[in-house]
Amino acid sequence: MSIVLDAMGGDHAPQAVIEGALQALPLLRTTLILVGNQERIRALLPDPIPAGLEIVHASQVVEMHEKPLETYKKKKDSSIMVGVKLVKDGQADAFVSAGNTGAAASTSLLMWRQLDGIHRPAICSQLPNKYGGFALLDAGASPDIDPENILEFALMGRAYAQRVMGRAEPSVQLLNIGEEEGKGNAFSKAAYAILAKQPWFKGNIEGKDMFSKPCDIVVCDAFVGNVVLKTTEGIAELIVETIREGVPKNPIHRSLYWPVRKVIAPLRKQMDYAEVGGSPLLGLNHLCVICHGRSNAKAIKNALLMTQTALENRLVDTIREAITDSAGTHA
Amino acid sequence: MSIVLDAMGGDHAPQAVIEGALQALPLLRTTLILVGNQERIRALLPDPIPAGLEIVHASQVVEMHEKPLETYKKKKDSSIMVGVKLVKDGQADAFVSAGNTGAAASTSLLMWRQLDGIHRPAICSQLPNKYGGFALLDAGASPDIDPENILEFALMGRAYAQRVMGRAEPSVQLLNIGEEEGKGNAFSKAAYAILAKQPWFKGNIEGKDMFSKPCDIVVCDAFVGNVVLKTTEGIAELIVETIREGVPKNPIHRSLYWPVRKVIAPLRKQMDYAEVGGSPLLGLNHLCVICHGRSNAKAIKNALLMTQTALENRLVDTIREAITDSAGTHA
Repeated sequence: MSIVLDAMGGDHAPQAVIEGALQALPLLRTTLILVGNQERIRALLPDPIPAGLEIVHASQVVEMHEKPLETYKKKKDSSIMVGVKLVKDGQADAFVSAGNTGAAASTSLLMWRQLDGIHRPAICSQLPNKYGGFALLDAGASPDIDPENILEFALMGRAYAQRVMGRAEPSVQLLNIGEEEGKGNAFSKAAYAILAKQPWFKGNIEGKDMFSKPCDIVVCDAFVGNVVLKTTEGIAELIVETIREGVPKNPIHRSLYWPVRKVIAPLRKQMDYAEVGGSPLLGLNHLCVICHGRSNAKAIKNALLMTQTALENRLVDTIREAITDSAGTHA
Repeated sequence: MSIVLDAMGGDHAPQAVIEGALQALPLLRTTLILVGNQERIRALLPDPIPAGLEIVHASQVVEMHEKPLETYKKKKDSSIMVGVKLVKDGQADAFVSAGNTGAAASTSLLMWRQLDGIHRPAICSQLPNKYGGFALLDAGASPDIDPENILEFALMGRAYAQRVMGRAEPSVQLLNIGEEEGKGNAFSKAAYAILAKQPWFKGNIEGKDMFSKPCDIVVCDAFVGNVVLKTTEGIAELIVETIREGVPKNPIHRSLYWPVRKVIAPLRKQMDYAEVGGSPLLGLNHLCVICHGRSNAKAIKNALLMTQTALENRLVDTIREAITDSAGTHA
């Protein structure tokens, strides 16, 4: 097995990406292929190159602001294009990137195609709560969907929760603006009716309750999912900053504030996107893992470990089987 | 001028509601009418009843779980129905309730009707950020809208920001899943095109940036707005609870943790919904202010003060004028 890592993707690439790769390497049972500018990558690696690490050259870089479809047409030798193609050609099993999310997602989609029976891919993000977190999807891949696609998201989310989060019989809830059946907008009412036929569907969940009640998988469209993700990030940062501003600058007074650092430590861990590191784009024939643009070495390392777990536990095959079973049940 | 307060609405009614009313009373330049069970209200008030306070009896209470339209048909003598009717009949100028939101909103809508030119009312909620907060609408009134309605929300939000938040030339941003024009789903793209004609429109804003950048008004549909509101609440509670759990239970160890309490104090204030207390339902011919179901006395007090500001600064008239001007510009 091997994982391709986009060495040029992200705000702190290639340094942070390569540092993360080197941290992950001792824990990987797969080959790791770094794709990008060979010279720049080589300069950041020890000599000789550690076992299990390979470099594949790509002469171009997709910038964060570039339009995904334009780069697909024009930058045929970008690290994203070369990396995704390695997987397509069977030379690797998964692609991981902290670069332009739209470009990584659309290149994977166009080159690998959707799994049979999947009409819309979804990004699956893990969010924290008091019970070990939950998977939210779609967190940003497919903004305009039909209510029917929510069933696909639910099946993909269940496969992720089983294979990556280790939940044996995960249940699915629909993000809605009220708990009872019949609440919501036209879309969520239609999605509810479709999900209600499934034994693992546990009804609606409100935005607040995702964080305070046990839940495995929360499904919604990508617009709502992305807003949840960004709101979570924004509030968490506002809170941490407000706390930080309350600590005196004077070093002597500051030293009395050690308990603050102590109580905030678990919070930082809980809210740190780098703890999971990446969010898989689900519904394609191979595995693409999207990392935060701001990824540090820790995020890259954890994204690689999550990707390894997903590969070893056959996440894509599990989704394929779930979709086939579901289609069989409906036929 | 006078404000009607639903004495029976909310999880802690009538105690917390009446306590809040008594706290607000010295600061009110309006008459305050308490509507609800006369006997229960009377028992919670000092003797004699303070000047400026009146009681209007209502024999029924709308419970939190009841369906709004059913209560409208069946509970003709509920505190919500009687309160809203007092405003309709010109005996009061605004209605404030921490009771069943759907019932308060639909009763106001059905009895008072929308302002000419408004097709969908919106709940306008104030959220915290580093720059004195921003108004988010629609926070939950109209889940299924057309992109055209977003312009109405923007005009109403501007009136609120000017008249209640004291922003002289407030700008409006569209909540979206990307900053640049052309991002988003079909709905947000269409809404962008409509807003782009306005001089005060400042483009898209992402969920994260609302909390970290200066902004006055953020518009979105009620589904998205309500999810933002609830997500904010959920994350803030998760964080505060995680911090609280980090403080030792043992009283001696605990005493060393005083700095934690100190740094969290501004945070509590920042995240406390009770600081604003209520969210007006905008777009109707009169003012209805919705309070959180969990409202304590402080929330009720602050909601009453906000309502007074809105009345004294002619919020509803300002909206009426803005809508008329906008229609004139379009004609």
